[in-house]
Amino acid sequence: MDNITIIGIASIITAGLTTGIGTMLPALSEGKAIASALSSLAQQPDASSTITRTLFVGLAMIESTAIYCFVVSMILIFANPFWNFIIAK
Amino acid sequence: MDNITIIGIASIITAGLTTGIGTMLPALSEGKAIASALSSLAQQPDASSTITRTLFVGLAMIESTAIYCFVVSMILIFANPFWNFIIAK
Amino acid sequence: MDNITIIGIASIITAGLTTGIGTMLPALSEGKAIASALSSLAQQPDASSTITRTLFVGLAMIESTAIYCFVVSMILIFANPFWNFIIAK
Amino acid sequence: MDNITIIGIASIITAGLTTGIGTMLPALSEGKAIASALSSLAQQPDASSTITRTLFVGLAMIESTAIYCFVVSMILIFANPFWNFIIAK
Amino acid sequence: MDNITIIGIASIITAGLTTGIGTMLPALSEGKAIASALSSLAQQPDASSTITRTLFVGLAMIESTAIYCFVVSMILIFANPFWNFIIAK
Amino acid sequence: MDNITIIGIASIITAGLTTGIGTMLPALSEGKAIASALSSLAQQPDASSTITRTLFVGLAMIESTAIYCFVVSMILIFANPFWNFIIAK
Amino acid sequence: MDNITIIGIASIITAGLTTGIGTMLPALSEGKAIASALSSLAQQPDASSTITRTLFVGLAMIESTAIYCFVVSMILIFANPFWNFIIAK
Amino acid sequence: MDNITIIGIASIITAGLTTGIGTMLPALSEGKAIASALSSLAQQPDASSTITRTLFVGLAMIESTAIYCFVVSMILIFANPFWNFIIAK
Amino acid sequence: MDNITIIGIASIITAGLTTGIGTMLPALSEGKAIASALSSLAQQPDASSTITRTLFVGLAMIESTAIYCFVVSMILIFANPFWNFIIAK
Amino acid sequence: MDNITIIGIASIITAGLTTGIGTMLPALSEGKAIASALSSLAQQPDASSTITRTLFVGLAMIESTAIYCFVVSMILIFANPFWNFIIAK
Amino acid sequence: MDNITIIGIASIITAGLTTGIGTMLPALSEGKAIASALSSLAQQPDASSTITRTLFVGLAMIESTAIYCFVVSMILIFANPFWNFIIAK
Amino acid sequence: MDNITIIGIASIITAGLTTGIGTMLPALSEGKAIASALSSLAQQPDASSTITRTLFVGLAMIESTAIYCFVVSMILIFANPFWNFIIAK
Amino acid sequence: MDNITIIGIASIITAGLTTGIGTMLPALSEGKAIASALSSLAQQPDASSTITRTLFVGLAMIESTAIYCFVVSMILIFANPFWNFIIAK
Amino acid sequence: MDNITIIGIASIITAGLTTGIGTMLPALSEGKAIASALSSLAQQPDASSTITRTLFVGLAMIESTAIYCFVVSMILIFANPFWNFIIAK
Repeated sequence: MDNITIIGIASIITAGLTTGIGTMLPALSEGKAIASALSSLAQQPDASSTITRTLFVGLAMIESTAIYCFVVSMILIFANPFWNFIIAK
Repeated sequence: MDNITIIGIASIITAGLTTGIGTMLPALSEGKAIASALSSLAQQPDASSTITRTLFVGLAMIESTAIYCFVVSMILIFANPFWNFIIAK
Repeated sequence: MDNITIIGIASIITAGLTTGIGTMLPALSEGKAIASALSSLAQQPDASSTITRTLFVGLAMIESTAIYCFVVSMILIFANPFWNFIIAK
Repeated sequence: MDNITIIGIASIITAGLTTGIGTMLPALSEGKAIASALSSLAQQPDASSTITRTLFVGLAMIESTAIYCFVVSMILIFANPFWNFIIAK
Repeated sequence: MDNITIIGIASIITAGLTTGIGTMLPALSEGKAIASALSSLAQQPDASSTITRTLFVGLAMIESTAIYCFVVSMILIFANPFWNFIIAK
Repeated sequence: MDNITIIGIASIITAGLTTGIGTMLPALSEGKAIASALSSLAQQPDASSTITRTLFVGLAMIESTAIYCFVVSMILIFANPFWNFIIAK
Repeated sequence: MDNITIIGIASIITAGLTTGIGTMLPALSEGKAIASALSSLAQQPDASSTITRTLFVGLAMIESTAIYCFVVSMILIFANPFWNFIIAK
Repeated sequence: MDNITIIGIASIITAGLTTGIGTMLPALSEGKAIASALSSLAQQPDASSTITRTLFVGLAMIESTAIYCFVVSMILIFANPFWNFIIAK
Repeated sequence: MDNITIIGIASIITAGLTTGIGTMLPALSEGKAIASALSSLAQQPDASSTITRTLFVGLAMIESTAIYCFVVSMILIFANPFWNFIIAK
Repeated sequence: MDNITIIGIASIITAGLTTGIGTMLPALSEGKAIASALSSLAQQPDASSTITRTLFVGLAMIESTAIYCFVVSMILIFANPFWNFIIAK
Repeated sequence: MDNITIIGIASIITAGLTTGIGTMLPALSEGKAIASALSSLAQQPDASSTITRTLFVGLAMIESTAIYCFVVSMILIFANPFWNFIIAK
Repeated sequence: MDNITIIGIASIITAGLTTGIGTMLPALSEGKAIASALSSLAQQPDASSTITRTLFVGLAMIESTAIYCFVVSMILIFANPFWNFIIAK
Repeated sequence: MDNITIIGIASIITAGLTTGIGTMLPALSEGKAIASALSSLAQQPDASSTITRTLFVGLAMIESTAIYCFVVSMILIFANPFWNFIIAK
Repeated sequence: MDNITIIGIASIITAGLTTGIGTMLPALSEGKAIASALSSLAQQPDASSTITRTLFVGLAMIESTAIYCFVVSMILIFANPFWNFIIAK
């Protein structure tokens, strides 16, 4: 049973850290983009439609890197091939 | 009983760190966005409706990355497949 | 009794660190938002109602990430499923 | 007696670090907010009542995150459920 | 069975860290590019088509480095030659 | 006697580090606030009474976080419940 | 079989870290270059052809350092002389 | 005699580090305050009495945090209750 | 066979890290140079030939330091005298 | 004789580090204060007497924190109560 | 044979790290110098001959520090006196 | 003879590190002060006598903290009471 | 033979690190000096002779610190008294 | 012979690190001073004699801290009292 436990622990810790670390800079990055958007809006209110459209496309792109991390975490928790192989044994 | 304990510890520590670390930069990022919104409001009070709307959409997006971390923590504490498998045994 | 002790230690340390680390950047972030609000107030005293309203909504949002951490700490101290399971045994 | 000692040590160290680390950035953050308030006062002395009111509300909010840490430390020293459980045994 | 477990753990941890670490700076970098695009739009609304086209080409290029990491993670989880060799034995 | 020694060491080290680390940023923060106050005084000598009053209230608030750390250190050295319990035994 | 496992682990971890770490700064660097290009476009829309041409040559050059890392990772996973030597034995 | 030695070492190291680390940022902070005072004096020589008075009050306040550390060090070297208890035995 | 394995591992890890770490700052540096070139082009479009020529010479020079690292990695993987000596034995 | 050696080593290392680390930031801080004084002198040569007087008082104050560290080092080398107690035995 | 292996490993790792670490800052430094040269060219196109000449002399000087590292690496791989001594035995 | 060796090693390492670390920031600090002096001289050539006098007094003060470290190193190498005690035995 | 190996390893690693680390900041520093020289040339082309002369004297001075490190490395590789003593035995 | 080896290793490593680390910031600092001198020369070519004189005095002072480190390294390699004592035995 030892091997099952070890694989389990590694999956738990890696899943947590991947999400915990990997969402840090996307969040920071979104904050930066939004901050820039807001000061641009204040500077050029007439271009608000272009600015908000570009912002939302950009945010979606940044969010995608956070989602890569979340996906890897979910795969490690709910669809982990190594865990399945060990259990199947 | 050893294995149960080890899985338990790993879950506790990972749950704590994932939330503790993963909410740091979203918080920082929201502070940045709000700071930018406030100085934009001071600079262009007439665009306040666009600014606050963009701000709240952005904050929701940033908050989502913090919530990914919180969700992973909650899964690790209350719906942990590895823990359930070990106990079920 | 060993297992109980280990689970206990892990819970104590994680609870402390989660709150200790996780409240750092929300605090920094609130300081940033407040600093920005104050200089905005000095720059545009007429918009004080919009500014303070946006500030308080924002502070509540930032505080929420600090509260996630506090909640995880409290769960780990007073409603820890792993601890309950070990004791119940 | 070993278990009692270990739980005790973990509580002592965690209590100290939680307060020691967790009050660092609230302090920094309050310094930032006060510095901003002071330069705002110098820039717009007429808005001093709004500025100081917003400052004190903000300081209270920041202080709250430092107090979360202090509360967790005090709980770990004087109302630690893990310690009580081990001693009661 | 020991070797299988060890290879498995190494793959899990490396897969998680590669995605977790490797998507951090692409995200930051995209945030920077978007922030710059938004302030450029505010400054020169007439050049919006050139700006957004350059931005999207650039974002695709940055995203490619994040995808390198994601690809390495996926190879390590689902097409790992070392794991296949060990199992095939 | 081993347990007494261990509890003692942990208390000594924690007491020292809590004060050593925990007073760092309050000091930095007070320096920042004072620096800001001085440049505000130079900029607006007429508002000196408001500025110094706000400064001293703020310094007291920042000092309070340093005092939390000092209090925890003193509790750990002179009123440590874990130490008392071990000795009483 | 021990040696095979050890060489395998070292290859997995190194491959992951080389790509994970080595693509971080190229990504950051591309973000910087694109950000600079965008603000240059906003400042001098007439020179857009020279700017975008220089940008794309530069991005290719930066991408080359990321590709060095990716190449080393791929060599370590799919054409590793040390692994081949050990297996061939 | 082992226990005496261990308590002694812990006291020596903690006393040194507490002073060594804990006086770093107060020193930095005083430098900042003095630098700000000097440039304020250069900017507004007429307000020199207010500026130097505020500076010295502030320096005393910052120095107090350095003195907390020095006090803890001195207590650990010359009035250490844990050391006294071990020796008294 | 132990020695062969150890030399192999050291070569794998060093080769990966040398490329992974050693290409980071050249990439950053190229980004800086390109960013500077682009803003120079925007500022002085007439000097574009001198600027791009200087830029490409400079990029080649920077790239050379990245290539030193890549060369060392390739030597360690494909022309490693220590590995050859051990195998030849 | 072991205990004497251990106490000796701890004293040597702590004495060195306390001075080595503890004089770093006072030095930095004095540099900052002097730099500020020099640019203030260049800006307002008429206030040179006030500036240099404030500077020297400030430098003395900063130097005091470096001297705390030096004092602790000297106590640990030449008047160490723990060393005296062990030797006296 | 153990000694040969150990000397070999130390040489491999040191050679890699010396080049990997030691070429980082020269690269950064060259980027800084080139960036400065380009903005100088944009500002004063007439002085282009002096600027490029000074730049290339400077780059050669910076490159020399990177070459020191590369030389040490090559000595450690191909002309290592310690390795030769051990083998000659 | 073991104890003599250990005391010797600790003295060597501490002596080296104390000087190596402790002279870093005084050097940085002197550079800052000199840089400030030079730009002040360029700005106000008439005040050169006051500026250079203040500079040299300041440099002497900063140098004193570097000399504290050098003195502690020399004491540890040539007048080490712990070494003398061990040898005298 | 063990002792020879250990002395050898220590010499190899130290020689590599001393050059690898010790040439980093001289390189950075030269880059800074050259960058400053170039922007000075652009600003005041008439003073080019004084500027380049001061630059080259300065570069020689900075290079000297890099050469100290290179010299120590070469002494450790080719004229190491500890190695000679051990071999001579 | 063990003791001789250990003292030797400690001396080698400490000598290397003291020079490697201790010359870093003096180099940086000289770069800063020279950069400042060059921009001062560009700003005020008439004061070139005062500026270069002050610069060279300052560089000598900074170089002195690098020389302290080099001296300690040389003492540890060629005039090490601990090594002499051990050998003399």
